[in-house]
Amino acid sequence: MCNACLIDSVRESALSRRDFFRRSAAAGLAATAAGTLAARPALAQSSGKVVDLTYTLTPEFPTFDGKPGISLDPDKDYAADGYKIWKVSFFEHSGTHVDAPMHFAEGGLSVDNLTAESLICPLCIIDLKAKAAEDPNAMVEPEDIENWISDNGDIPEGACVAMNSGWGAKMGDASFRNDPEGNFAFPGFAKSATDMLLGMGVASIGVDTLSLDPGNSADFAVHYSWLPAGRYGIENLANLDGLPASGATIFVGAPKHANGTGGPARIMAVL
Amino acid sequence: MCNACLIDSVRESALSRRDFFRRSAAAGLAATAAGTLAARPALAQSSGKVVDLTYTLTPEFPTFDGKPGISLDPDKDYAADGYKIWKVSFFEHSGTHVDAPMHFAEGGLSVDNLTAESLICPLCIIDLKAKAAEDPNAMVEPEDIENWISDNGDIPEGACVAMNSGWGAKMGDASFRNDPEGNFAFPGFAKSATDMLLGMGVASIGVDTLSLDPGNSADFAVHYSWLPAGRYGIENLANLDGLPASGATIFVGAPKHANGTGGPARIMAVL
Ligand SMILES: [Zn+2]
Ligand SMILES: [Zn+2]
Repeated sequence: MCNACLIDSVRESALSRRDFFRRSAAAGLAATAAGTLAARPALAQSSGKVVDLTYTLTPEFPTFDGKPGISLDPDKDYAADGYKIWKVSFFEHSGTHVDAPMHFAEGGLSVDNLTAESLICPLCIIDLKAKAAEDPNAMVEPEDIENWISDNGDIPEGACVAMNSGWGAKMGDASFRNDPEGNFAFPGFAKSATDMLLGMGVASIGVDTLSLDPGNSADFAVHYSWLPAGRYGIENLANLDGLPASGATIFVGAPKHANGTGGPARIMAVL
Repeated sequence: MCNACLIDSVRESALSRRDFFRRSAAAGLAATAAGTLAARPALAQSSGKVVDLTYTLTPEFPTFDGKPGISLDPDKDYAADGYKIWKVSFFEHSGTHVDAPMHFAEGGLSVDNLTAESLICPLCIIDLKAKAAEDPNAMVEPEDIENWISDNGDIPEGACVAMNSGWGAKMGDASFRNDPEGNFAFPGFAKSATDMLLGMGVASIGVDTLSLDPGNSADFAVHYSWLPAGRYGIENLANLDGLPASGATIFVGAPKHANGTGGPARIMAVL
């Protein structure tokens, strides 16, 4: 980015901060849904540095229900056929993956109907590491969002808001999923926080854990409100530590099988 | 993009055109492989307009071997479980998808080992519609690449070079795959052309048809040379008509299952 662009960008950001309270008050639930987002000016300021936010998907990757998320069976092989192809089978909500509205809302948007515009978004990262170190079921709460905004300015319309709880450091260990007693234990979003994000026209929320709701959730309140509102989620994000709180653009390579409730996705960020 | 950036960009493009013959002569097979590409300055000039290059994947989507490429079986459902999940099974080379080197090269890069940097590339589109209207097995040949370069300037290192044969208009019709006699018939790349692209450090080639090689290929010469050279391919690209010959950036959302030979990918372009 040249200096002139940098100055434009700083000016724009100051303007949008001033606009914030006016916009968020007016936006309400009628705000921009995942299907109707505008262009992403964030990309115009890219340096081109790429960070992969996707874990490699293996049969050992931790899953919510504990059964292996993926399996590969031979279809074609070099010796017999001259080339190799696997038949791949997976449960949709395995690995780094997208939750489409239909996952928790009968009649909701299926993953193939998420628009391309809603899959390339400004990425806002909320650092929850200190809270999560105290409480494995810590939640992103409204005050965490307010703190992010006072540090970084407005959350752009159509953004992806991701929680970085530091849980990536536990990948490969039982503590990624459970506490020592074997109960689910990992951070997630509080419904009061995602209700706030709904009103800001946020397109998606992301977590570096197994679920949008924290491990000790009894009611999946976020899944049952965020997804039916026509927004999507991302679970098991990797490498969030490599990114700034604000300024990156996320590319969500959601699968596009007809009538899907979500599925493994290739997710990358560009700085 | 502000005017100062625009001027920088025009200057850079003129410089790189002058560099072309020197660079392409020196590059050879040791040129930048898919795994070691540099940052993508193309993104710094983006307007943010997004075009989805991915077809929706259904059991009816045409496949090379004729069997359905994907099936969905119920896993969880709203009534019994409170939410819905499918178990999805597919043959890797179905729908809009990536061919990793390992598909045709034992020991070659698997799809999970393609680097994120190689999946975000400047997109160069070669218009083959006139040739393909004359001959359903038309090929992108060296002179088509030379013509593209004289019209558009240098092919950037790490680019994706895609053929637009107009075949997208046949999607849903038997002629997407076969001629009236039932033989494979669709355009693809000639090996002489992809050998030329190897020498330019191109990261990937893409086609709007079922295969990198044309339908009447007897030897899959492109699959057997391009993929073993450590580059990847994209088949069944959609919506190439919506893009300029030069200037767009392609995001290749390749799947990341361990040891995969390729697979369905969410592919989008940003203008
Ligand atoms: Zn999920
Ligand atoms: Zn293929």
